[in-house]
Amino acid sequence: MTDTAVVSPAPLTLLGTGAMGTALARVWLAAGHEVTVWNRTAARTEPLAAEGATVAASAADAVAANRLVIVCLLDDASVGDALGGAELAGRDLVNLTTGTPAEGRARAAWAEERGARFLDAGIMAVPPMIGAPDSGGYVFYSGSPGLFEEHRDTLGVPAGTRFVGADPGFAALHDVALLSAMSGMFAGITHAFALIRPEDIAPKDFAPLLADWLTAMAPAVHQSADQLQSGDYTRGVVSNLAMQVAGNATLLRTAEEQRVSPELLTPYMRLMERWLALGHGEEDGTGTVELLDVRGR
Amino acid sequence: MTDTAVVSPAPLTLLGTGAMGTALARVWLAAGHEVTVWNRTAARTEPLAAEGATVAASAADAVAANRLVIVCLLDDASVGDALGGAELAGRDLVNLTTGTPAEGRARAAWAEERGARFLDAGIMAVPPMIGAPDSGGYVFYSGSPGLFEEHRDTLGVPAGTRFVGADPGFAALHDVALLSAMSGMFAGITHAFALIRPEDIAPKDFAPLLADWLTAMAPAVHQSADQLQSGDYTRGVVSNLAMQVAGNATLLRTAEEQRVSPELLTPYMRLMERWLALGHGEEDGTGTVELLDVRGR
Repeated sequence: MTDTAVVSPAPLTLLGTGAMGTALARVWLAAGHEVTVWNRTAARTEPLAAEGATVAASAADAVAANRLVIVCLLDDASVGDALGGAELAGRDLVNLTTGTPAEGRARAAWAEERGARFLDAGIMAVPPMIGAPDSGGYVFYSGSPGLFEEHRDTLGVPAGTRFVGADPGFAALHDVALLSAMSGMFAGITHAFALIRPEDIAPKDFAPLLADWLTAMAPAVHQSADQLQSGDYTRGVVSNLAMQVAGNATLLRTAEEQRVSPELLTPYMRLMERWLALGHGEEDGTGTVELLDVRGR
Repeated sequence: MTDTAVVSPAPLTLLGTGAMGTALARVWLAAGHEVTVWNRTAARTEPLAAEGATVAASAADAVAANRLVIVCLLDDASVGDALGGAELAGRDLVNLTTGTPAEGRARAAWAEERGARFLDAGIMAVPPMIGAPDSGGYVFYSGSPGLFEEHRDTLGVPAGTRFVGADPGFAALHDVALLSAMSGMFAGITHAFALIRPEDIAPKDFAPLLADWLTAMAPAVHQSADQLQSGDYTRGVVSNLAMQVAGNATLLRTAEEQRVSPELLTPYMRLMERWLALGHGEEDGTGTVELLDVRGR
C-alpha cells in the first residue's frame, strides 16, 4: 500500500445530447464521472438517464450543478440561447459546438465578460470514433490554457486532446482547415471513381491503389510548409509548375475521353496556370496559396 | 553446389533520355543490363554513355539492337515519330510515355499491326524515386500479359510493377485516376494553408496535423468502393449528405472570415447540393460520382 492519492473522476455538465453529445456522455459515465445533462428536446436525454446521468430541468440548472460545463449544441446561436439565463461566473466552459474561428473568439469574450473561463474546441471525429482510442479521432482545443491544464485528463477520456493555442479561434480554424483539405481530397476521389466507372474495373480493386497513393503523397505537405515558412517556393522542387501544368492536359483529355465532367479538377488547374503565367514555372504549386488570399481585394 | 541456372540480365533498348529515361537507364546499367539508348537530342545521351550505355545513331538502329524496347518520350506523337522508321516485327514494346487511355489503346493496335507485342505503362513516381525501392514509387502496366510475364523481372528493376489488365488503356487510366485524385487533395491542402496563412500559426506545426488527418481519412475510399460496387450508397453511412452539406456552410463562412477565396471548395459543394436536392440526403457523398458522368449528355 502506498500513499498515492487517487483522484476521483470529476463531475461535469453536458449541454446537448445529440449523436455527438450522447456518445461523449456515455464514455464519461462509463469512466465513472457524474454527468448532468440537459437537452432542449428532453426525450433525447432518456437513454443517458437510464445509464446513470442526472437530467437537469433547465440549462441554467445544469450549469449550476457543476463547475465544468461542456457544450455540444447545433450551432453558436444555440449556445447563446441555452446559456443566456445561466449563471456563468466561476464556471469552466468548454464549447464543442461546431463554429467558425470568429464565433469562437466572440463566444470566448462573451463568456469571460460573464466570469467564466472558456475553451473552444473542434472535434476531429464522428460519434463512432468517440471512446475508441485507436480510431484516430481527437479534439482540438484553444483558449484558456489554465482551464485546459486543469481538465485535460477529463477532456481526454472520450478522445485525444490537442491544445493549439490561447487564441480561442484556433481550435475552429484548425478544424475547418483540416476538413477543407479533406473536402478537396474527397473531390479528387470522386473524380477518380468517375473515371473508372465506365470500365471493367472493380471499385474494390481500385480502392486500395487509391488509398495507398493518397497516403504516400500526403507527406508532400511538409515540403509545402517548408516553402511557406521560408518564403522560398523553389526549395526541394522535383516536378515544377510548368511540368505539372503540362501534365494537367493529360488529366483533362482523359476526363473528356471517359466522358467525365472536369468541374472538380479545373479550378485548381486554373489557379496553377495563373501562377505559372505570373512567372513561377520553376516552383512547384505551393505559391498558389497566395492567389487565394483576397485580403485587400 | 546446385544446378540452378543463373539468368544474366536481359539487354534492352531505351528510347528517350530525359530526366525519367536517364534515371531508368542508370538503374538498369547498375544492375548489369546492356542498355542501348537513343535520344532525339543526342547530347543528352552522353552521361549514360559514360556509364556504359551504347548510343545508337537512330531510333531504328536502337530498336534493331534488342528485342525489349522501352519508350519514354515526351508524348504519344513523339512515339509515332521515333518509331515510324523502325522495324517492329518480333519486338516487345513497352511504352512508358505519358498518355491517355485512348492513346494507349491506339498505340497498342498500331504496334500489333506491325508485329510487335505491346505494353502500355503509367509511372507513379518522379525520377528521384526510380531505383529507390523504399520510395513507394511503382509503374502500372497493361496490355500483353505474355510480354509482361516474360519481362517482369527486368521491368521490376527500376521500380515496383503492377499489371492492371490486358486492356492497353488501363495503365494510363489508373495513372490518370490516381493523379486526378492527388490533384484534388493538393487543392484541398492549398486551401487549408491559405486559411492559416493570416494567423500566427507556423506552417511546419500545422503540416503534421494535416498529413495525419488526410492519411487517416484516405481509407474512406474503401467504403465508397463498397457502395459503388453494391449500388447501395446508404451502406455504412455515418455522416450523411444532409449533415455534410450543413457542415460545408461552416467551411465557407470560415473562408470568408479568413479572406480566402472559396473557388477550390465550391465545385464539390455544389455537386453535393445537387445530389442532396435529388433526394439523396440519407446517403453519404459517394453518389455524386454519377453527376460527373456526362455520357449521353
